[in-house]
Formats: sequence, structure tokens, C-alpha cells
Amino acid sequence: MTLVADESARLLETAARAARAAAGVVARAPRPAKDAALRGAAAALRARSAGILAANEADVAGAPGLSAAYRDRLTLTSARIEAMAKGLEEVADLPDPVGHVLAEWTRPNGLRIRRIAQPLGVIGMIFESRPNVTADAAALCLKSGNAVILRGGSESTRSAAAIQACLAEGLRAAGLPEAAVQVAPTADRAFVGAMLRASGLIDLIIPRGGKGLVTRVLEEARVPVLAHAEGLCHTYIHAEADPAMAREILKNAKMRRTGICGATETLLVDAAIAPALLPLLVADLRALGCDFRADARARVICPDLPAASEEDFSTEWLDAILSVAVVDGVEAALDHIRRHGSEHTEAIVTEDAEAARRFLDGLDSAVGMWNASTQFCDGGEFGFGAEIGIATGRLHARGPVGLEQLCTYRYHVIGTGQTRP
Amino acid sequence: MTLVADESARLLETAARAARAAAGVVARAPRPAKDAALRGAAAALRARSAGILAANEADVAGAPGLSAAYRDRLTLTSARIEAMAKGLEEVADLPDPVGHVLAEWTRPNGLRIRRIAQPLGVIGMIFESRPNVTADAAALCLKSGNAVILRGGSESTRSAAAIQACLAEGLRAAGLPEAAVQVAPTADRAFVGAMLRASGLIDLIIPRGGKGLVTRVLEEARVPVLAHAEGLCHTYIHAEADPAMAREILKNAKMRRTGICGATETLLVDAAIAPALLPLLVADLRALGCDFRADARARVICPDLPAASEEDFSTEWLDAILSVAVVDGVEAALDHIRRHGSEHTEAIVTEDAEAARRFLDGLDSAVGMWNASTQFCDGGEFGFGAEIGIATGRLHARGPVGLEQLCTYRYHVIGTGQTRP
Repeated sequence: MTLVADESARLLETAARAARAAAGVVARAPRPAKDAALRGAAAALRARSAGILAANEADVAGAPGLSAAYRDRLTLTSARIEAMAKGLEEVADLPDPVGHVLAEWTRPNGLRIRRIAQPLGVIGMIFESRPNVTADAAALCLKSGNAVILRGGSESTRSAAAIQACLAEGLRAAGLPEAAVQVAPTADRAFVGAMLRASGLIDLIIPRGGKGLVTRVLEEARVPVLAHAEGLCHTYIHAEADPAMAREILKNAKMRRTGICGATETLLVDAAIAPALLPLLVADLRALGCDFRADARARVICPDLPAASEEDFSTEWLDAILSVAVVDGVEAALDHIRRHGSEHTEAIVTEDAEAARRFLDGLDSAVGMWNASTQFCDGGEFGFGAEIGIATGRLHARGPVGLEQLCTYRYHVIGTGQTRP
Repeated sequence: MTLVADESARLLETAARAARAAAGVVARAPRPAKDAALRGAAAALRARSAGILAANEADVAGAPGLSAAYRDRLTLTSARIEAMAKGLEEVADLPDPVGHVLAEWTRPNGLRIRRIAQPLGVIGMIFESRPNVTADAAALCLKSGNAVILRGGSESTRSAAAIQACLAEGLRAAGLPEAAVQVAPTADRAFVGAMLRASGLIDLIIPRGGKGLVTRVLEEARVPVLAHAEGLCHTYIHAEADPAMAREILKNAKMRRTGICGATETLLVDAAIAPALLPLLVADLRALGCDFRADARARVICPDLPAASEEDFSTEWLDAILSVAVVDGVEAALDHIRRHGSEHTEAIVTEDAEAARRFLDGLDSAVGMWNASTQFCDGGEFGFGAEIGIATGRLHARGPVGLEQLCTYRYHVIGTGQTRP
């Protein structure tokens, strides 16, 4: 059944108005109530595990044409449900970001001014196949005092509804409004369009998924968006790199997990060190199953590498493929990154502090690293406890988006009768 | 001449690409260069004062149908040019927000993480009649390391060009790219549309002007916007207010300047104190020339007040008119504000700290005040030195937008060869 756009807009408006009312309650809920809701939801996930698995089986059975990888992402197991429950409990353990005094000062006229962290309001989360995102995203939104409307993949609606029922049980038991966590009331794609146009009803859209989904959201949204369309991350091995460190970092940055946004897609290596080091780097990665796309200068050193097209350097492989270019120093590396990068995460490996400074200063990326693997671009690794995504835009938040980034702020100004001259 | 939209888009793209290149330079410019550019521009404004006045006279002569108020806002005088020059020097004196370490921590694995303030990039400023905004906005954008494209009112193009020439002189003398401060190359309204659609070319749009302009920008923009469409500010006089303080605060909040966004538009007064206090408040304001729109309960106490319609309570008067309602306590006041307010600035006057806490906690507004005039909602009064506007949205910045709010951040992660397990 395809709903007309107006029907989707009506459903969205109903959901968003309920979310707005709930947001006013959870924004002011004390920490123990929010944590109790999360722990209650975790208990419900464990107690209702059989029902969730049955719902998920029906989802998987109802989507026969899926690729094996997609099918794997869609499938829940007892272990995955337990991981979801643990995830909720871990978020309950995190500090409450709401009400935190971010800054405080007193004016010469005696006015005391406080900048205080406050929830954003109503968040719209749009994601693809993994049903566990329902629980993870709901937990982070609730803990940060926000209401959330979750729109997962249309093939996972039964799983999402079963997970949402557990969250509702937790909220109810904690005396919080169930409407703080809602799943889309329809699998119709027009509902996504309605979310993207819901200016004034939804305060922030967070898309999580492939480049196609995120690009559509960024292009169509009339609501602010926190996202990254891609993570075309670079590791630059400077002439003064420690060769052993460079080899370990590159192996990890490229091959630890190839499908995450912080994985290195392109190796830039200084001409001065490339003849000695590049063959070793290639051998290391080849032993791990990596393939290459190399520019002409790299192929002079390693003639057996496949040639890269210009477009290859603008491709986020998300796979065991590495683009390779030989460059002449920091400025050339920065030029390459500005031409091809996505302002996500780039790393330099060098023992030369001045070169590292020039590289980091010259980047516009959300995250610049010195002598570390680009795969550290992650909310957990940053110490945020958990993340709802990574942002590469310029406004509000950049890099990992955790509880703190799911808040805005407001001011309290405390006087003793002051009037403005 | 009306340009086709494509021609405007082409002009905008050319300006924005030049701005992007300049932004890369001013983002990394040391403080002395930026300050020298601002002081040089101030000197140029003084030196070229006669030429600026002549350009402005031509603008005023070329727009004969204007209201007196609009004509006054459009007109420059020697004193106004001197004020612009002083404004540039004051911004030069402000601390540089760029590169400020906002947070810094070390992870258990030894990674050092720094969150560092960074310019936003290219800002589009859309404003109405006052030509001095050209200088003020340019100064704040440049000092915060951003490039800016300024689109003022179509009737002030000669004035804007004359002022921009002074800024260009300052930039040139300081060795910074002139393209860091550009004015729209055409007065065609289609250029505004092109700015609003310039996703990826412009990072942030700041509109300054009437509700019509700001609403159009908020509705049409595909680029993030910082703005307030209106400032429908409330002063709530609680039952436990100090009557003398309440009278002074209300006089100031309503009548100090009626045309600014922080001016109080609605008085809410508790039923318990209204019979004694409301007649005094009305007499105070009437003596200053204020008119009223009162609800039925207020008119029982002051029968000579004109009756308010429901719509009056949702009207930002920006004039010597005050909407008045009698309410029953903090929750009723908050209800009224949620129904009619614009999440800009609201104040409570009370000696009861618990009532003040409930009021401030219950607000969603950017600024909540206790025993102070709503007219303090201003970047200068907050200690920011200057402001480019006031934001009431939920993302990025709320309240006065100063140098700090014109920055985003990025991370530097400093390791010693760490790889992610």
C-alpha cells in the first residue's frame, strides 16, 4: 500500500505532536527516572527475547531478495538481543548531560549568566537495516532528554515494533511518557519525506546508513541534519615517520574493519620515504587480503600495483581496497585531501612535531590525528560512552555525536532588579 | 533588470568559490593580521567618509517612496560612519576565538584529544536597510576567521559598495584576501534565492531584519540558518514580586526601546498581586506613552484598558503597546508562554527563589531571566563584545550570536602509535 504524501504528513504530524509533548516531560525528568526506563527496557528485551526473534524471523522471511550481507545485518540472534540490552544498561550508567552548567560568569552590573545544557527536543532518526539501532538510538535520545521518532528500514518493521514495545514498557514503569520513543507508524517511504519536511515539528534529523540514504536526507531535509555522507579518510606517511609505527598504524587504519566510516581509504606517502617503505606497506596489507589502486609515482616503486583513476581517489571503498599516491610533503598531502576528502578523519604519521602541526592546522576535517589509527574516530574511543553517529557538517557538532552533542543550551540570567541603561 | 535565476546562481557560485578560497586563508590568519585589517578598514571609513556619504545620498535619492522610519535607517551621517569605524576597532580589541582549546582530555590508551574552536567557513548575511550592518557583520565574520557574502537591501547597494571598498582596503593592507568580505554583485532578489540554495557553497546563513525576511529565509533555505523570526518576550510578575522592582523592570523591559527583539511584548501578572499592582504598572507605562491590550481578568481590575483578542497575545508589537493577562501562578504563566511565545527571552520578577527556579526550569526559551529586564538579551550585555544576531533555533547556538558562536570546532587526536583493538 502506498500512502499519499498528505496521509504520511498527517501521520507524522500526529507522531511529532505526541513526541513534542513527551519531550517536555523527558527534558525535565530526573536522572533516576531516565535510567530506570533504560534498565526496565533492557529487562523487557531479555524477557521478550523469544517474541522479538519471532518478529525478526517474519521480517527476514518477508524480504527474500536480500543480499547475504544485508540479510545478516537484518537478522537478530539471542546474542544480539543481549548486546542490545547491555547497550541500554551502559547508557544508563553514563552521566546525565542535561542541566550541566557549560559556562557561568558575572557581569559588571551584577547579572549572573549561566549557559546550561538542554535537550534538543524531538529527534528524527532515519536508518537502514540493523534493527538494533532502534534500541541504541532510543537510549541515547532518552538519556539526553530528547524524544525520538525512529524510522528504520521498511523490511524490519516487525522487529522494530517488538523492540519499541520493550522501550515502552521501560518508560511506562518509570512513569515517563511512551511517546518519547516512537517508531514510524507506517513503512511507506513517503513518511521519510514527511519527516524531512517537518520543520518546527522535528528539531534534528540523524540519518544512519549508506551514502545514498544520507545524501537523499541532506538534499531533501528542511530540518537540520547531523550526518556524514561518507568517510573518505586519509593516512599520510610523512618523510620523518617511524617506519615500524607507520606499518602498524596503516594495517589497523585500513584493515581492522574495512566497512566503518573511520577506515582509511587512501594512503599518501612522501616521495622521500616511499622507495624504502611503500613495498613493505604493500606487502603488509596484501598479506591481510588488501587490494590497491596506485598513482603513477607509486607504480614506479611497486610496478605490480593496479593503476588508479582520478575517480578512485574520490571513492570510499568500505572494502579491502586502498588508493595509494606518492606526494611531496605536507602541503601536497593537504592539497590531495582538500581535493578528494570528505572532512571526516585524516591522520599523519611522523616523528616531526612541526610537520604534524602544519598538517593538523591545515586540515578542515572534523578529526585530525597524529600517530594514531583513523579507526579511533568513534564515540566510544573518544570517551563519550556511545555515539549515535559521526558528523562532518560545520554546524552544532562535528566528529562523534554522543550525549553531549544531543543537547543544545539555554541561558539563565539572574539579577537583583537590574534594568538596562 | 531582473536576472534569470540561473544567472544569479552563477554569480553566487563565483562569489562563493572566491569566498571559500579566502576562508581558508583567514581561518589560519594570525590575530595581528585580522586586527590590522579591521583597524585599516576603520581608518579607510574615516578617510573616505565624504565618498560614502555621497553614495548614501544617491541611494536615498534613488528610493523616493520610503517611509520616514525606513528612510532614517537607510541614511548615513558622519556620526554614523564614525560609529561604524569605532565598531570595527572594538571588534579588533576583542579576543580571537579561533584555536581556543574548548576541551582536552587523555584516554586510558594515552591518546590525547583536543576540541579546538575553528571558523565555520563561508557565511551568507542577508539584511535589510541599515548600511552599517555591512561593516558590523563583516568585522565579526573576519575576526572569527570566516569569509562573508553580504546581501543588504536593494536600495542601499551604493552605500554597501562604498563601505565594502574600505574593508577591502583594510584587508589588502594586512595581506589578507579581499574576497573574505564581499557584497552581492547584483541587487536582484534572485541572488537571495541563490544564497539560500547554496548548500555546500555557503555554510551558514544569518538573516537580520523583519519577520517577513527572516520567515522567508527560514522557509526557503537549504543552508543552515541562525536567526530569530520574532522576539515575543514575556515579563511575568509573580505574586511574591517586590512591587517597586517589578515597576522598574517592566518600564525598562517594555519602554527602554520598543523596537528591539528583547523588548517585552506581554505582561503576565499573578492574580494575587494584580489588584494592587496592575493599576500602578498601567499608570507607569501610560505616562511613558504606552498603550494596552488586556484580557478580561485584567479589565476587571483596570476597566479602561482596551480588550485583547487571542491573536494580540501572539503579536510582536515592536511598538509602545503591551498585551496584558492575569494568570494563576507559575504553571499558568508557563502555559501562556508555551502557547504564544517565540522561545526568545522571558523574565520572572519574584522574591521567591523556588518560584523562580520552577519558572526558569519550565521554559524552553533561549534566555530565561530572574529579576532583570528582558532588554538585557544582547551580545554586548552578555559580555560578548558584539553580536551579529540572536538565535532562537535549537541547533548550534542560542541567544546572542557573538564571535564564539561564529565558530565550530574540530578535534586533534595525538598519539604515539596507538592502533585500535
